[in-house]
Amino acid sequence: MSDEILAANQAFYEAFAAEDSERMDALWARRAPVTCVHPGWPALVGRVRVMASFRAILENGAPPVRAQNPSVQELGEVAYVVCDERIGRGRLVATNVFVREDDEWRLVHHHAGQVADGERVVDEPEPDDSMPSPSDLN
Amino acid sequence: MSDEILAANQAFYEAFAAEDSERMDALWARRAPVTCVHPGWPALVGRVRVMASFRAILENGAPPVRAQNPSVQELGEVAYVVCDERIGRGRLVATNVFVREDDEWRLVHHHAGQVADGERVVDEPEPDDSMPSPSDLN
Repeated sequence: MSDEILAANQAFYEAFAAEDSERMDALWARRAPVTCVHPGWPALVGRVRVMASFRAILENGAPPVRAQNPSVQELGEVAYVVCDERIGRGRLVATNVFVREDDEWRLVHHHAGQVADGERVVDEPEPDDSMPSPSDLN
Repeated sequence: MSDEILAANQAFYEAFAAEDSERMDALWARRAPVTCVHPGWPALVGRVRVMASFRAILENGAPPVRAQNPSVQELGEVAYVVCDERIGRGRLVATNVFVREDDEWRLVHHHAGQVADGERVVDEPEPDDSMPSPSDLN
């Protein structure tokens, strides 16, 4: 399950890299409402606005974005990934929320914002880029 | 249901305003792993780190944060709220993810980042600060 969610997360960044707005559209939920927060932007609410934003970004030459250090959290029919984004020398962090629709993990929310500096901070012991198990918690 | 989620979201900002780290701790999930992205910070993964970050922030005199324009999305036992945050004259946008545990909506993820400028953009017709219904979608 976690692999499928990571693959869905990676597909998002591949559609971005391919500057392919139709492929991007296909990755987002059809029935669940969708929302998006691009870096520095106000929140976009609703599929029409979110898809228009991706078309505008992707059709105007999107900068190459690489995703790193994904942490997956599975919550039944919902999952989210927190990952770093590298854009050139810039460093951002993203939250990508997915919902299970038609046997596929589809995006319902993307929120990305800049990181001032520093590395990811993870509870000890380091959970190998995955979420800590409940037994790690207090 | 939506009211309960909005109340849980509001409780988060009230614990922040009260600079009460114990109250903050009580609002976060016990069993589901938790994650957090403070504005400009790298991702924090795991309850120990996330709670330590809130203690550090709240015990050092947190700036007053007001939440505005919450949009709730319900996804079964998971829900998330996208809302604006006002800190003095600063404007941020936050994603707060909640999970149902022990008949309570508890936080599993908070991600906040600055907005460069502008107002929230919402699909027409404006859905009164709520999410659009599936029938609004393409």
